[in-house]
Amino acid sequence: MKATNGNSLKIGIDIGGTHTSIGIVDSDGNILNCHKLNTPDFDTVESFTLALHEASIRCANSSGSSYEQIAGVGIGAPCINHQTGVIEGAVDLPWPSPIPFKEKVSEKFGLPVSCINDANSAAIGEMKFGCCKGSDNFIMITLGTGVGSAIVADGRLIHGIRGLAGELGHTIVRRDSDRICSCGRKGCLETYCSARGIVKTAIDMISKHPCPILSSVPQEELTSKIISEAARNGDEAAIATFRFTGTVLGEGLADFAAFSSPEKIVIFGGIAKAWDLFYPSMMDSFNHNLLWIYRDQITIERSMLPEASAAILGAAAAVEL
Amino acid sequence: MKATNGNSLKIGIDIGGTHTSIGIVDSDGNILNCHKLNTPDFDTVESFTLALHEASIRCANSSGSSYEQIAGVGIGAPCINHQTGVIEGAVDLPWPSPIPFKEKVSEKFGLPVSCINDANSAAIGEMKFGCCKGSDNFIMITLGTGVGSAIVADGRLIHGIRGLAGELGHTIVRRDSDRICSCGRKGCLETYCSARGIVKTAIDMISKHPCPILSSVPQEELTSKIISEAARNGDEAAIATFRFTGTVLGEGLADFAAFSSPEKIVIFGGIAKAWDLFYPSMMDSFNHNLLWIYRDQITIERSMLPEASAAILGAAAAVEL
Repeated sequence: MKATNGNSLKIGIDIGGTHTSIGIVDSDGNILNCHKLNTPDFDTVESFTLALHEASIRCANSSGSSYEQIAGVGIGAPCINHQTGVIEGAVDLPWPSPIPFKEKVSEKFGLPVSCINDANSAAIGEMKFGCCKGSDNFIMITLGTGVGSAIVADGRLIHGIRGLAGELGHTIVRRDSDRICSCGRKGCLETYCSARGIVKTAIDMISKHPCPILSSVPQEELTSKIISEAARNGDEAAIATFRFTGTVLGEGLADFAAFSSPEKIVIFGGIAKAWDLFYPSMMDSFNHNLLWIYRDQITIERSMLPEASAAILGAAAAVEL
Repeated sequence: MKATNGNSLKIGIDIGGTHTSIGIVDSDGNILNCHKLNTPDFDTVESFTLALHEASIRCANSSGSSYEQIAGVGIGAPCINHQTGVIEGAVDLPWPSPIPFKEKVSEKFGLPVSCINDANSAAIGEMKFGCCKGSDNFIMITLGTGVGSAIVADGRLIHGIRGLAGELGHTIVRRDSDRICSCGRKGCLETYCSARGIVKTAIDMISKHPCPILSSVPQEELTSKIISEAARNGDEAAIATFRFTGTVLGEGLADFAAFSSPEKIVIFGGIAKAWDLFYPSMMDSFNHNLLWIYRDQITIERSMLPEASAAILGAAAAVEL
């Protein structure tokens, strides 16, 4: 733990449906100390905010600095309006919408609070401290329970009205699909390239390919992690699952390029750990589907920042002082 | 023709594969005078630039002002790099690429020259003088020989690297399509919603619907104009053609919304004249395919600026003085 003098420290908070991460961040982008809470442990937003405050004080103190040195709080959360700080329609959070989160945190912390969509906070983290440092044009795709995205064009995050830009996980990649998405529609990118989508694909592949490993797991217990391990151990259905995931992802990414002409697409999130399993088919499909004017102009990279770090750093970097 | 004092006038030039329009624009967005050239009449870029210069002088003089009052030239052209002013890969222009167009015009005119992609110039025209006045978040779709687009997010045009953002006509809307696009791929939005795409759809529909009018026209003579007239005269294949065009367009627009969260989508170009024929099915399809968070947030409108005017005004407005 490093100590920092002066009140140039920020708190970065990354709120997710399962975990919430809190970090004390210095001006060089070092996370001095961090703490994790289980989001569903808190019945009310008030008890959650109280726990965030207590954890922040503890984190600050045990980092060798103090809470008095904190200049502001940055919050990355799903479905948060970056202007009003209200969370609306975040199906994975345990509290009813709308949640006036910025107001609650301001009251409790007594500090300036900035809010940012969770995918955008990870993009800011990459832009400030990760593989997009110095890049003015990139798209970040988060592959996890769902598929999130953030778009940086001409050096600026695209917000759109109500901060709702960048829902690329909900563009339709298969019009004739019978895969129902969490959004209620069918055939979204998320139904193919999220952890849940990968499980669906594996169930399809089990009937088509030899699968000594996957066939030994009850379908309701299949996870993307089990499938990636099976693929690495030679299970053909599992290998075909990631190959197909890469193909669909590459098609989607090629279309996204036609929107903002990025120089880089960064893949982030839990599924990115299976990079070697879907990268070849993703690149084949991307190159095959890309409009010729973008050819050889766009690289696709895996994020090298630890998942929690990027979101904490991005949330902290969103603090405007 | 109105006269304007002081050198606050600009020349706006809209270069297209068929016609090029030149207009003298005052600071209030009035086109004082304009002239049209047939682009393919000129064998070389040099002879074309000379004709542009002569037409500009004539336009200025007969508008009651003079060439000396012109402060700068704005050029809207397909495939032009807004930073370098070089046109590259514009298949509809009669001269070989790359065309250092800004350099040529600067030399001949002796004035500051700004360049902008043709779809972007129309968007700037709408933003400054048309139905997007005051809007910070909109997407403009040009339906003509091809399908062009421009995206304004958070008050700024999205350029992307090399100014190549906004090629939404080349996102794939039907993965299993056998329709070959001008870009060499299959199933692009342009293969369905451009003038050429509409003719293809009509040829499909002729075998499926009663078509007393369309069946009397040799297929090689079909145009989107003939098809729209047939539809207005009750030809069922023609009606079905525009219904299907609207359906595909609505699907595409719903996906585009997930990118930049616009408050408005503006449809522009020759095909927009058939607005009444495709609007109902486009709206049905758009609303059906739209992610719920955008519901009731986005209007789709037809541009009310005359086609040549928007592009001339937008090109002139792009002049940075």
